[in-house]
Amino acid sequence: MRQSKLFLNTMRENPADAEIASHQLMVRAGLIRQLTAGVYTFLPLGYRVLTKIEAIVESEMDAIGAQEVLLPAVQPEELWVQSGRSETYGPDMFRLADRHDRRMVLGPTHEEVVTSLINNEVNSYRQLPLTLYQIQTKFRDEVRPRGGLLRVREFRMKDAYSFHTSLESLDETYRDMHDAYCKIFERLGILYRAVEADSGAIGGTGGSHEFMVLSDAGEDTVAGCTHCDYSANLEKAVATPLAKADATNTPRATVVPTPGTKTIADLCQVLSVPASSIIKVVVYMADGQAVGVCLRGDHEVNEAKLKAVLDVTNLRLASADEVLARAGKRVGFVGPNAPIRIVFDRDVMSVADGVAAMAGEDEHIIHVVPGRDFELKETVDIRNVVEGDACPRCGEALAFYNGIEVGHIFKLGTRYTDAFDTTYLDEKGESCRITMGCYGLGTSRVLAAIVEQSHDEKGIIWPLSVAPYQVHIVLVSVKDEAQVKASESLYHRLLAAGVEVLFDDRDERPGVKFNDADLIGLPVRVTVGNKIKDGQVELKDRKTGEVQVLSVEEAFGAVLGMVK
Amino acid sequence: MRQSKLFLNTMRENPADAEIASHQLMVRAGLIRQLTAGVYTFLPLGYRVLTKIEAIVESEMDAIGAQEVLLPAVQPEELWVQSGRSETYGPDMFRLADRHDRRMVLGPTHEEVVTSLINNEVNSYRQLPLTLYQIQTKFRDEVRPRGGLLRVREFRMKDAYSFHTSLESLDETYRDMHDAYCKIFERLGILYRAVEADSGAIGGTGGSHEFMVLSDAGEDTVAGCTHCDYSANLEKAVATPLAKADATNTPRATVVPTPGTKTIADLCQVLSVPASSIIKVVVYMADGQAVGVCLRGDHEVNEAKLKAVLDVTNLRLASADEVLARAGKRVGFVGPNAPIRIVFDRDVMSVADGVAAMAGEDEHIIHVVPGRDFELKETVDIRNVVEGDACPRCGEALAFYNGIEVGHIFKLGTRYTDAFDTTYLDEKGESCRITMGCYGLGTSRVLAAIVEQSHDEKGIIWPLSVAPYQVHIVLVSVKDEAQVKASESLYHRLLAAGVEVLFDDRDERPGVKFNDADLIGLPVRVTVGNKIKDGQVELKDRKTGEVQVLSVEEAFGAVLGMVK
Repeated sequence: MRQSKLFLNTMRENPADAEIASHQLMVRAGLIRQLTAGVYTFLPLGYRVLTKIEAIVESEMDAIGAQEVLLPAVQPEELWVQSGRSETYGPDMFRLADRHDRRMVLGPTHEEVVTSLINNEVNSYRQLPLTLYQIQTKFRDEVRPRGGLLRVREFRMKDAYSFHTSLESLDETYRDMHDAYCKIFERLGILYRAVEADSGAIGGTGGSHEFMVLSDAGEDTVAGCTHCDYSANLEKAVATPLAKADATNTPRATVVPTPGTKTIADLCQVLSVPASSIIKVVVYMADGQAVGVCLRGDHEVNEAKLKAVLDVTNLRLASADEVLARAGKRVGFVGPNAPIRIVFDRDVMSVADGVAAMAGEDEHIIHVVPGRDFELKETVDIRNVVEGDACPRCGEALAFYNGIEVGHIFKLGTRYTDAFDTTYLDEKGESCRITMGCYGLGTSRVLAAIVEQSHDEKGIIWPLSVAPYQVHIVLVSVKDEAQVKASESLYHRLLAAGVEVLFDDRDERPGVKFNDADLIGLPVRVTVGNKIKDGQVELKDRKTGEVQVLSVEEAFGAVLGMVK
Repeated sequence: MRQSKLFLNTMRENPADAEIASHQLMVRAGLIRQLTAGVYTFLPLGYRVLTKIEAIVESEMDAIGAQEVLLPAVQPEELWVQSGRSETYGPDMFRLADRHDRRMVLGPTHEEVVTSLINNEVNSYRQLPLTLYQIQTKFRDEVRPRGGLLRVREFRMKDAYSFHTSLESLDETYRDMHDAYCKIFERLGILYRAVEADSGAIGGTGGSHEFMVLSDAGEDTVAGCTHCDYSANLEKAVATPLAKADATNTPRATVVPTPGTKTIADLCQVLSVPASSIIKVVVYMADGQAVGVCLRGDHEVNEAKLKAVLDVTNLRLASADEVLARAGKRVGFVGPNAPIRIVFDRDVMSVADGVAAMAGEDEHIIHVVPGRDFELKETVDIRNVVEGDACPRCGEALAFYNGIEVGHIFKLGTRYTDAFDTTYLDEKGESCRITMGCYGLGTSRVLAAIVEQSHDEKGIIWPLSVAPYQVHIVLVSVKDEAQVKASESLYHRLLAAGVEVLFDDRDERPGVKFNDADLIGLPVRVTVGNKIKDGQVELKDRKTGEVQVLSVEEAFGAVLGMVK
């Protein structure tokens, strides 16, 4: 492609609304343009990368026997009412009425549509297992679109759905998908971790993994072992329980006045103790019931774990009035002996000499020993892990990473097939429920994640597998006949050899051309400049910055070696 | 692909709501399924065909230097207000409000979005000409979806937009597009005609062609010359004017009573004259003014031509009350002498001895000669052509064909760049308006058109270029070891040779398999049956029905010859 013909405007300055590198660079390098909040156009360079990402995804889906379909974007709302997700999605879904006033939604995902399809099309065990997938534009009315392509209202996604006669069959496809995702991310040249995840609103209880691209711009926190390959998102991460404290020498519990201590920090200061010595109780309203969660002052409640333990749908912090009314104390003075149901984090037992609000208002008790001074009825893992916690697999320290979620796979079980009464007839002619899995991968988000992970201060550094073009020929001066002749010849020879070449044949200053080339970030650059009078060109590796001065013939061979 | 694994349910019976062959066959052969009125899922076989069609379109667009992008489906309604098309589209567009109550539409087409993009990105003549295209799902809230994929609410389309500094440059790209479309339809193996067309609601006055697939199921009428390549849709078609009549021997005009003659047919019967002798006047309301159109009784008003002649926006037939109030006569008795503006079709002059309502109520005048008995102030081409009219190019007879519109190309001129004030700076630094063209091609409609044009009573007959698979191997009995061995071996050898094979390895009766194979309609079928004991298989050409009995080795070679 001749750059003089390419629809491309690069920009020197970062756009005002772009805070993260991928957003800045994708706009500056002319990959995308915003039409309206969270809705983007893919320009030619951006579309080429997207196409390459999606082709890699397609080839790995095909390789595990998934069959490609295209499901509709416009969907009857009644399907979402039937599954119960019309309510849970709420305003996050674009909704519309057609000209006959039938209520429709724009699909953010396709569990409902595909399950209703299977309902009509599958009736025998002989048709199972079956995996369908599609790559499609999806819609989600995000409250605050941000981060360029990371959180948008219209995006590209691969979504797959599998259908089974047994959990074993689901496990098999789930493993195939997991491995296919690993291959995809390896081919895309990105650093990622497959992390254990919570199933969240999509439902299903059979397990789930998120695929996280490690990046400071990521909105998700991943807890990963510094030694083994254990990774989980913060909602799901578990640690080895802390050692139970030896409290044999702890003095007798004693009441001390602590007026005006509203926070853990206040208390630490007044009593000169670390937060890890404090035994706090946080009060929640769980489906209308007050429930206290007792844990160490330096630990935080993990609401996903709490929700699972309590098996409730609606969970929120209790208001100050509710705390007073239900637990009989003001916020900050509810203790492990409060007259409500209390769930204890197992690591409360690591406190040897603690402080707890078990006395009156504006008082705390010091030298508290769990189990000695109060009873622990329900002891469970209910907290977020913290950095330094011991890995549940190998015992080494966990560390936190920021991650961009680019894929999520779920064992759904019968979450949707129950809602749609989706059955098959088994070998004996008996009607059985179909078991289901689903597997998402955000292809436009992957594009952003690649840029986020692979750039420097000058611009993007494309992995070869998805670079919009493989090679950038930069003709330094269009007024120098020898340079023109050599670069035109090299351009045509490389094209003939099947190499994807962007040829900067523009009448621009060399500085402009080099800056654009760095910004666009093609893997290999051949600069045809003054050295051509000695028959030489410069070959530059965008990633390493390494420059070689070679004859045109050597450069031709070296380029072929680098891109094949 | 093993058919035992393919997600495919064929049906013996036509679905109740399917009236045309392509709709029936696409559902029966398991290509598509309807989710809700006019909204379809593409199943694996259907999606494969769609993908092949779109790949052919892409390659021909790339070949003429068009650059691929992806524009958003969700668009701010204000862009459509700015172009004036929010009103003209009316309820044909899906509209929605986002969570912040901003009004959006789902794009049925992208002139507005792409023009606003160009507004921001193009400022110099050096960036022009430029052609962008995309292949995307589009939305249109049809009042009565029908005909399977022919008229739907969610469809696939290639749309391209070109931008120019001059009409000459637009003409050049328009010719390139025209030729690319011809190549596309030839590669798709379909019979089509490129017909002159009216620009309609999309606007622009610079010319337009529709690409019509000839088919009885088509909703459009194409007037085509039986001798040369002149073709136009009925709205646009013109004919050589009829010869002016020799009225030298016509008797004097005479009043005759014609009570109760409400229609042309009534009048023909009462007076025993052919409709071609009658000179009728049809009254319209044109932007609020009554206008009569005078033409022969056997001719029909062409409202597109009338609208252009009158240069009005709103045109409709006058009501009976309006006719009486404005023209002073009841419907049926308004003549060419009525006291309103009358536009005369030029072929009124072909009447030598006519009948007209130029007297009182319930009376007509016979032996009327145009020009002698009434004055023709405005004489223009205002009628639809009829079969047998003389071709405007070569004079031979025109004939009518039904066509499915699968493509439409337009010289838009400045219709949209005026609305968005889209300019560039020319060589002298002066601001000039950009000139524009647009080029649509319905890829999912093409799919239906191919099936419509290429099928028999047993099923679809795929052209090789878009067949979901090239070859169908039918293993007659999975219980016959020799058949299994031979078919498995042939399957693997053909796959290794790069042939796309569907292998019917199902445990089904031979009749079921053969019926399915005919229905699915792959170009080449290899039947591995009883003859395998003599080392022979049957090779069948789906299109010609020709069967050859060959050795496995010969069949392998013959298949390669047929598909390459």
